[in-house]
Amino acid sequence: MTTDRTPPAPTGYVQPEIDVKALGALLDGEYAEIRDLVRANLVTHAPVLDEAEELDIDAFRERVRERVVEMAATGQTGMGFPTRYGGGGDVGASIAAFETLALGDLSVLVKVGVQFGLFGGAILHLGTERHHDAYLPDLITGKLMGCFAMTETGHGSNVQALGTVARYDAAAQEFVITTEGDQARKDYIGNAARHGELAVVFAQLEIDGTSEGVHAFVVPIRSGGESAPGVAIEDDGRKMGLNGVDNGRIRFDGVRVPREALLNRFADVTPEGVYESPIDNPHRRFFTMLGTLVQGRVCVGGAGVNVSKTALAIATRYALRRRQFAAGAEGEEQLLLDYGLHQRRLLPLIARTYALHFAQDIVRTQLHDVFSGAEDDPQARRQLEARAAGTKALATWHATRVVQECREACGGAGYLAVNRFAALKADSDIFTTFEGDNHVLLQLVAKGLLTHYASEFEDLDQLGMVRHVTGLAVEAVIEKTSAHKLLERVRDLLPGGDEWDQEAGLLDSEYQLAMVRYREEHMLAGVARRLKRGMDQKRDPGTVFSEVQDHVIALAHAHMERLVLEAFVDRVRALPDGGDKVALGLLCDLHALTTIEADRAWFMEHGRLTVQRSKSITREVNDLCRKIRPLAGDLVDAWNIPSAVLRAPDLVGEV
Amino acid sequence: MTTDRTPPAPTGYVQPEIDVKALGALLDGEYAEIRDLVRANLVTHAPVLDEAEELDIDAFRERVRERVVEMAATGQTGMGFPTRYGGGGDVGASIAAFETLALGDLSVLVKVGVQFGLFGGAILHLGTERHHDAYLPDLITGKLMGCFAMTETGHGSNVQALGTVARYDAAAQEFVITTEGDQARKDYIGNAARHGELAVVFAQLEIDGTSEGVHAFVVPIRSGGESAPGVAIEDDGRKMGLNGVDNGRIRFDGVRVPREALLNRFADVTPEGVYESPIDNPHRRFFTMLGTLVQGRVCVGGAGVNVSKTALAIATRYALRRRQFAAGAEGEEQLLLDYGLHQRRLLPLIARTYALHFAQDIVRTQLHDVFSGAEDDPQARRQLEARAAGTKALATWHATRVVQECREACGGAGYLAVNRFAALKADSDIFTTFEGDNHVLLQLVAKGLLTHYASEFEDLDQLGMVRHVTGLAVEAVIEKTSAHKLLERVRDLLPGGDEWDQEAGLLDSEYQLAMVRYREEHMLAGVARRLKRGMDQKRDPGTVFSEVQDHVIALAHAHMERLVLEAFVDRVRALPDGGDKVALGLLCDLHALTTIEADRAWFMEHGRLTVQRSKSITREVNDLCRKIRPLAGDLVDAWNIPSAVLRAPDLVGEV
Repeated sequence: MTTDRTPPAPTGYVQPEIDVKALGALLDGEYAEIRDLVRANLVTHAPVLDEAEELDIDAFRERVRERVVEMAATGQTGMGFPTRYGGGGDVGASIAAFETLALGDLSVLVKVGVQFGLFGGAILHLGTERHHDAYLPDLITGKLMGCFAMTETGHGSNVQALGTVARYDAAAQEFVITTEGDQARKDYIGNAARHGELAVVFAQLEIDGTSEGVHAFVVPIRSGGESAPGVAIEDDGRKMGLNGVDNGRIRFDGVRVPREALLNRFADVTPEGVYESPIDNPHRRFFTMLGTLVQGRVCVGGAGVNVSKTALAIATRYALRRRQFAAGAEGEEQLLLDYGLHQRRLLPLIARTYALHFAQDIVRTQLHDVFSGAEDDPQARRQLEARAAGTKALATWHATRVVQECREACGGAGYLAVNRFAALKADSDIFTTFEGDNHVLLQLVAKGLLTHYASEFEDLDQLGMVRHVTGLAVEAVIEKTSAHKLLERVRDLLPGGDEWDQEAGLLDSEYQLAMVRYREEHMLAGVARRLKRGMDQKRDPGTVFSEVQDHVIALAHAHMERLVLEAFVDRVRALPDGGDKVALGLLCDLHALTTIEADRAWFMEHGRLTVQRSKSITREVNDLCRKIRPLAGDLVDAWNIPSAVLRAPDLVGEV
Repeated sequence: MTTDRTPPAPTGYVQPEIDVKALGALLDGEYAEIRDLVRANLVTHAPVLDEAEELDIDAFRERVRERVVEMAATGQTGMGFPTRYGGGGDVGASIAAFETLALGDLSVLVKVGVQFGLFGGAILHLGTERHHDAYLPDLITGKLMGCFAMTETGHGSNVQALGTVARYDAAAQEFVITTEGDQARKDYIGNAARHGELAVVFAQLEIDGTSEGVHAFVVPIRSGGESAPGVAIEDDGRKMGLNGVDNGRIRFDGVRVPREALLNRFADVTPEGVYESPIDNPHRRFFTMLGTLVQGRVCVGGAGVNVSKTALAIATRYALRRRQFAAGAEGEEQLLLDYGLHQRRLLPLIARTYALHFAQDIVRTQLHDVFSGAEDDPQARRQLEARAAGTKALATWHATRVVQECREACGGAGYLAVNRFAALKADSDIFTTFEGDNHVLLQLVAKGLLTHYASEFEDLDQLGMVRHVTGLAVEAVIEKTSAHKLLERVRDLLPGGDEWDQEAGLLDSEYQLAMVRYREEHMLAGVARRLKRGMDQKRDPGTVFSEVQDHVIALAHAHMERLVLEAFVDRVRALPDGGDKVALGLLCDLHALTTIEADRAWFMEHGRLTVQRSKSITREVNDLCRKIRPLAGDLVDAWNIPSAVLRAPDLVGEV
C-alpha cells in the first residue's frame, strides 16, 4: 500500500489501542446480563431474518407471534412487570432488553413493543389491581395478546382531540363505546388485524352528556379468531415494512363493557355515575395518564441507536475490505475507508451513534429512577418526558440517515435483501413517526424549556404556551434553564474571559460545551422574544406560532444536542486512563466538532465563530477522521452484534 | 379560519394566479405528444402498482415483462431506435418517454431501461449494421430480451478494471469468454435471472496474450428457458425494491462466440487476429465506447425528477386537506400547509424539483443534439457526459431526500403500501448507485472542470488528473471555465462594483447567479491549489487525492448547482408576462435563496455574505414560502400526474 493511513503525527501523539472487550462491557453497562440473554435469543431466532423475506404476509405474522412467545418464555420481554405476576421487576432492564432486540428483525421488536410495552404498559400503569390480576399473568407469557388503541385516522398526534366516545350507562353500569365518524376509527393499531383479543381503547368519557376527557378502557375485540359483537376490524394491509406486525383499524358500534373495564388508576366512575379523580385539572389528568406511557418513546429511541449500529457495522466492515480504483503508483486498488470522503461519510456517524448511546443511557436511567420510585416528583417526570421525546426524535432521525448513508456506501450489494439494508430501511422508516411524530415531539421539548417544566406544563397546548411565555419577561424565561447556569461558569473554566470563544482550544471539551450551551440559551431568548413581539402586535396566536415554529424546532434541537454532547463528555471524563479513554476522547471531539461544524453558519451569524476559526474546525474534523480511521473496526466490533444477525456475508465477509 | 394565509402584502405585490394547463404545457415542452402517450399507457397499466404488492416475485416478474412488451407495441419504448428497424428515430423523445414512465411503477421503468436503454443502446451504439439487422427488430418489440453485462461483483464503478476475459482463438475465429475468479462474475444484471436470451458482455479483449482493454461482445446466455452451455446464472434474489426486474449473476466458463459477436463500431479483430481501431489511444477508445451509453444517466436523472414529483404531489395534496391541532381561538384545527415549518419542509423541495426539471430539459436537448448529429464534436460530447453525470447525481439524491421528507410529512398513512411511498422509497433507492455511484459521477464532473474537458480528459484516472492539474498554473485552471467568464460580467450587471455582493437585491437573479458562480470559481482554484501543494511536497498522489476529495466533490456540487440555477433563471426570463411567470419567478427565487442559504457558512467564510445579509436571506426564504403557499396546489397539479398512478386515496382524497 502506498497510502499512508495515519497522518504525520503531531508531536507526542500516540495512536491509541482499543480494548474491544472492555469497551463492549462499558457499552452494555449494568445490563450486560439481560443484553447477553437477548443476544443469545437473537442468534436462536436468526432465521426470522430470512423468513421476513420468504414467507407471505400471513405466515410471517404467525411466525413472528410464535417467536415473540418463545422469547417471552425466556423472561426477556417481561422484565418491566412486577415479579409477583411473573415479570422481572426491573424497568431499566426491560428497556435494555428492548434496545438489544433492535439488533435483530424489527417486526419481532415492534410486536414485542406493542404487546409488552404499549398494551402491557397501559394495563400496568393505567389499571389497578383488578386489571393486573386479570390480565398480567397471561399477557406476560404472550398467551393473551392485546392492542393499544389510541391513534385515530383523523388525529394522529393530537390525542386529546380523538373522537371515540365511551358513554356511561348508569342503569346497566356499563360503558358504551362508539366510533363517531370515519375520522374516529382507530388506525395503525398493532395486533389488531390478527392476534389481539383485548384492546386498551382510548375514548372520550361521557357521563350524562358531560365530557370528562380521554380515558382508557379494556375492551374485548376478538375471541377464537372472530371479532367481538359490535367490533369491526379491518386489516391495514401491506406496509413499507414491519409486515410481521398485524396492524389494523377498529370501529366500535355501541360496544358495551362493564364499569370495571375503565383503567381506573387516575380516575373512576362510581356505580351511580359520579366521576372521581385525585387529579382535579382535566388537562393535567390527561397528561399524567399519557406520561406513564413514556417508556414507549424511550424504547424507540434506544432502538434507533441500535439500528444505526447494525448499519454502520456492516458499512464499516465493508469499507475495510472493499478496494476500488487505483490509488498509488503500484496500481493496487485502495480500500474504501482510506478515501477521505468515505471517512467523512462514516466516521462522524459512528461518533454520533456513540454519543446517542450514552444519551440513551441517561434517559433509561431517569426512567428507571422515576418508575421504580427512586426519584419521582412532578418536575422529574416532566423532565423525563421531555428528554425521552427529544432523544427519540434525534435517535430515530439519526437511524434514517445512517441506514441511507450506509446503504449508499455499500453500493449495489447494499440493495440486495440478503445484506440487511432493505429490511433496516423499510422497517425503521416509521420510527420517526410512531410514538409521536418527531416534529411534534420537539415542540414538546421546546415547550418544557419555555415554561421551565412548570406545573402548568401539561395544561398548555400551543396557544397556551404562547400566552404563557408572553406573560413573562424574556430574562425570566432563560434564567432558570440549565444551559444558562452552565454557561455562567464558562469564565472560570475557559481562558480569554469574554473572548473564550476565540481563545479556547478546539479540542477543549469545555469550549465545545460552551458553544452548544450558548446556542441553546440564545435560541431560547430568541423564541421568547419573537412570541412576545407577535402577541404585543395583537396578531393571531396561531399565526404567530406558525411563523416562529422553525425557531421552536431549532431550539429543541439545540437543547437536545447539548444534552447529548454532555452525556458523551461526562462519560469520557469518568473513564480510567488508557487506550479506550483516548479513543473515545477522539470520537467525542469528532462528534462535538461535527455538531458545531454542521451549524457553523449560525455560530458565525451570532458572533461566536470567526471565519478563520470556522475553517479550522473543518480542518480539525478531517484530522480527527484520519486519527480515528485505524480504530474504526474496533469501534464497531465493540457493539457486539452477533454475526448471525449482522448477516451481509457479501459485505462483511465470513466471520 | 383564523390563520391568515398570506403575509401582510408588500406595497404593490399582487398574488399571481397560475394557469395550470399552460404551465403543464410548458413543462411537457416539445415532447407533449409522447408524454401523453406514456400517460395513457400508465393509466392502462395502473394495476401493476397493485400487482407489485400482491404477486409473488416470480409472478410479478412475468407480469412486468408482459406489460413492457405491451407498452413496446404502442411505440413508446422504441423512440430512440432508427425508423428502419421499427423505432421512432427521435433520441430526445425516447428520454422524454422514459422520464414520464417514471411516474408509474419503477420495476416497469427499470425493465424498460435495461431492455431498450442498456441492452438496446449497446447494440445500437457499439454495434454495426450486422448487429442492428440481426437484433434490433426483435429487440424493439421486446420479443428478444437482453442483458447489459458490465458490472462485476468486484468492480462496481471501476469498469476499466473488470476481470472477465475474452481471448481470441484465431484458429476457430472465435472469442472464448471466461470469468476469472469470483470477483469477476457479472452481478446485478437486469434481465439475467429470467428473461434475457442475449447479453452484451464487457470483457478484457486478449489476443495472443496481449490485452487490448475492455470491449463488448454479444453472447447468447439462454434459450428456451435453459442457460446456454458454459453459462452459469444465479438469481440475485429479493432486493430492497424493483422486484419486478430479474437481476442476476452470470459466470462464463470458456464460452465460445464467433468473431462477429464483437460489437465492432470502435474496434475490430481481423480473422487472423489483428486488432484494429480508428482510435489509437486505448483509454480514449474505452471512454468513447462508454460515452455512447450516456443516455442511461440522462434517463435516470429524469426519472429522479419525476419520482420527486409524485412524492411531492401526494404530500402537498395531503397538507392541503389534513388538519392537525387547534390553531386559533375558535378551535378548528389548522391545515398542515399553514404551519410555517411544513411550508419550509415542502415548498423548497417543490422549487428544487422545478429547477431540476428545467436542468433536465437542457441535458436532454444536448443529448439529442449530439446523438442526432446536430452538434457532435468531442468537446460537446465530453460536456454532455459531465453534465449528464452531474444532473443524475443531483436529481437522484434529491429524489431520495424528497421521498423521505414526504413520507414523514404524511405520517403513519404514508407508511401504508397503498399510499405509494413504500414502493417509491424502496424502488428509487438504488438510483443513487446505478448508472454510476453519485460520488464517482461527481468526481467525473470535477475532472472535466479541472481539465477543461481537454482531449486528455478520458485518459485520466484520479492520479492522472492530479498530475495534469499540478502541471498547470492555478490561473490557467480557472481561466477557461464558464463560471469565470460569467462572473467577469458581474460588474456590468450589478450595482456596487466590488461590493456587488452587499449592494444587489436578494431577489435580483443576477446577484443569485453571481453568488453561485463565485463559489464555483473559488472552489475550483482551491482544489487546484491543494493538489499542486500536495504534489510540490512530494507526497503520494493517492494520499493527496484522498485528502482533497471532499473539496473535489464540493466543487462538482457547486458547478452543478450553478448550472441548475442558470437553467431555471433562463427559463423564467424567457416566459411571456403573466401569472405563470410571476409564480415561477417566486419559485426560482426560493430555489436560489435556499441554495445559498444551505451553504451560507461557506459564503460567510469566503467573505461573500455578511452576518446581517445571511440572516436576511433566511427571512426572505420564509417570506417566499408564505407567498408560494397559496400556489402550492397548482404547482403540483401542473405536473399532470394521472390520478390512477398517483393513487394514495387516503392522502390526496378522491379525485
